Amino acid sequence: MNTYPFKLELEVRDYECDIQGIVNNAVYQNYLEHARHLFLKEHDIDFIALSKRGINLVVIRAELDYLHPLRTGERFTVALNLGRVSRIRFAFQQDIYRLPDDKPILKARIFWTAVNEAGRPFFPKELEELMERIILPQTKGENG
Amino acid sequence: MNTYPFKLELEVRDYECDIQGIVNNAVYQNYLEHARHLFLKEHDIDFIALSKRGINLVVIRAELDYLHPLRTGERFTVALNLGRVSRIRFAFQQDIYRLPDDKPILKARIFWTAVNEAGRPFFPKELEELMERIILPQTKGENG
Amino acid sequence: MNTYPFKLELEVRDYECDIQGIVNNAVYQNYLEHARHLFLKEHDIDFIALSKRGINLVVIRAELDYLHPLRTGERFTVALNLGRVSRIRFAFQQDIYRLPDDKPILKARIFWTAVNEAGRPFFPKELEELMERIILPQTKGENG
Amino acid sequence: MNTYPFKLELEVRDYECDIQGIVNNAVYQNYLEHARHLFLKEHDIDFIALSKRGINLVVIRAELDYLHPLRTGERFTVALNLGRVSRIRFAFQQDIYRLPDDKPILKARIFWTAVNEAGRPFFPKELEELMERIILPQTKGENG
Repeated sequence: MNTYPFKLELEVRDYECDIQGIVNNAVYQNYLEHARHLFLKEHDIDFIALSKRGINLVVIRAELDYLHPLRTGERFTVALNLGRVSRIRFAFQQDIYRLPDDKPILKARIFWTAVNEAGRPFFPKELEELMERIILPQTKGENG
Repeated sequence: MNTYPFKLELEVRDYECDIQGIVNNAVYQNYLEHARHLFLKEHDIDFIALSKRGINLVVIRAELDYLHPLRTGERFTVALNLGRVSRIRFAFQQDIYRLPDDKPILKARIFWTAVNEAGRPFFPKELEELMERIILPQTKGENG
Repeated sequence: MNTYPFKLELEVRDYECDIQGIVNNAVYQNYLEHARHLFLKEHDIDFIALSKRGINLVVIRAELDYLHPLRTGERFTVALNLGRVSRIRFAFQQDIYRLPDDKPILKARIFWTAVNEAGRPFFPKELEELMERIILPQTKGENG
Repeated sequence: MNTYPFKLELEVRDYECDIQGIVNNAVYQNYLEHARHLFLKEHDIDFIALSKRGINLVVIRAELDYLHPLRTGERFTVALNLGRVSRIRFAFQQDIYRLPDDKPILKARIFWTAVNEAGRPFFPKELEELMERIILPQTKGENG
């Protein structure tokens, strides 16, 4: 758990659980998105502001391994790491752990890119520089 | 499009779209789940009734390729196929196409199994028979 | 049921139900919003297009009476009527009935107005004319 | 703001906002429900545990005044008070304020009761005692 450059602590809300009494599968994607956006914001990349300038950060593929369900009221950590997959593609490694026992709940890889208004891959220099800063030394080589 | 044993037609609702004006990534998992449950119901497998008997159908992995975003008001088809991955694992191939032009929107593989109250894989004979019936001839070999 | 100028038929989806096995209270507002937007669209009022021109239709008050819960798989009608409350305020009467027995599920009044970019009430002539057309003779006096 | 016996601080998540860039109307009901359940839990009333014993706490009416929209990333307080309306009916006064300026966002009254498995109003002695404790001196007379 020590190597993630970003972690977010959250709590399951009753309305996020379905009839089986567990968090609905789709809701985990909400948790992951929220963590990604807070992480980017922490590095001064504003998802909404970019969108208004015609640059959209888009998810192109998601791989989610559901290891154990979360139940209502449980607290959990969304841990996040970022790696470069190709010149224009990045992948977030996002893992959810239950608190306080750190039981693994979900392991996910979220692949994304940046596109301009024409829908073409487009990485402005500014974003490029931020990526350099975000992809910390310990993650290079692992996911890159 | 002709080879899917099950198709569901739906329409994007405004509240399913986010600030970018497109359907939020997590919402597609709602569409897919809804299609799976209707498909199972059509084959007399009641997700909720099974759950009450202590048998849960659980998603263990989801792979989603986001090809093109859906926008508000657009109609679409959720097409579904089912294959056996191993003795206790199955995979739904679920593809979303925009209507009326059948533009591919999302391609997903949803892996799942059945577990009993102890969380152990458990396929009651009844479910086994239903699976035999569901996995239609044309899909065997392709996904199996 | 005959006097509503607009009705929408929908089906409860499993992911809309909570741990109690019934549709979550907040989800009814999704149903109501979806019905309102489809109704407006039928009368050529595009909620999103107006928004892009700086005119927002905003809900200012909602009153919802929960009469009986909906359960998964149940079909229902969202019936809608529109009345003028004041020069700049309108109210949707929105009632949900279970199918096929027409059991009353929810009765709601949704009060709304139109505002410009400065947040001030603003009814463009175009919208005014459409309202005249929408508020059908049978509803005048009742809600007006 | 000082007289509320319970307050919860939350932050708007991007996926809770709609195309207009503001929190969707239905989402406020999620915030309110989450605050109510945490409040009850703080007083040892477990919503889910009661439900398993056949006692459901059900919302019978909601009145929501939308005063000002919340936008993505904004922090807010959900403040809560509880009053008795009749022998078997209670009302939560729930007000949302934006942080840090305490601008009023939403004022709501959520009326609820407890019912047994037959759907009849039913207040077990245990719940009755808890209510006595929850309805603090300062709220009696105001809402009672």
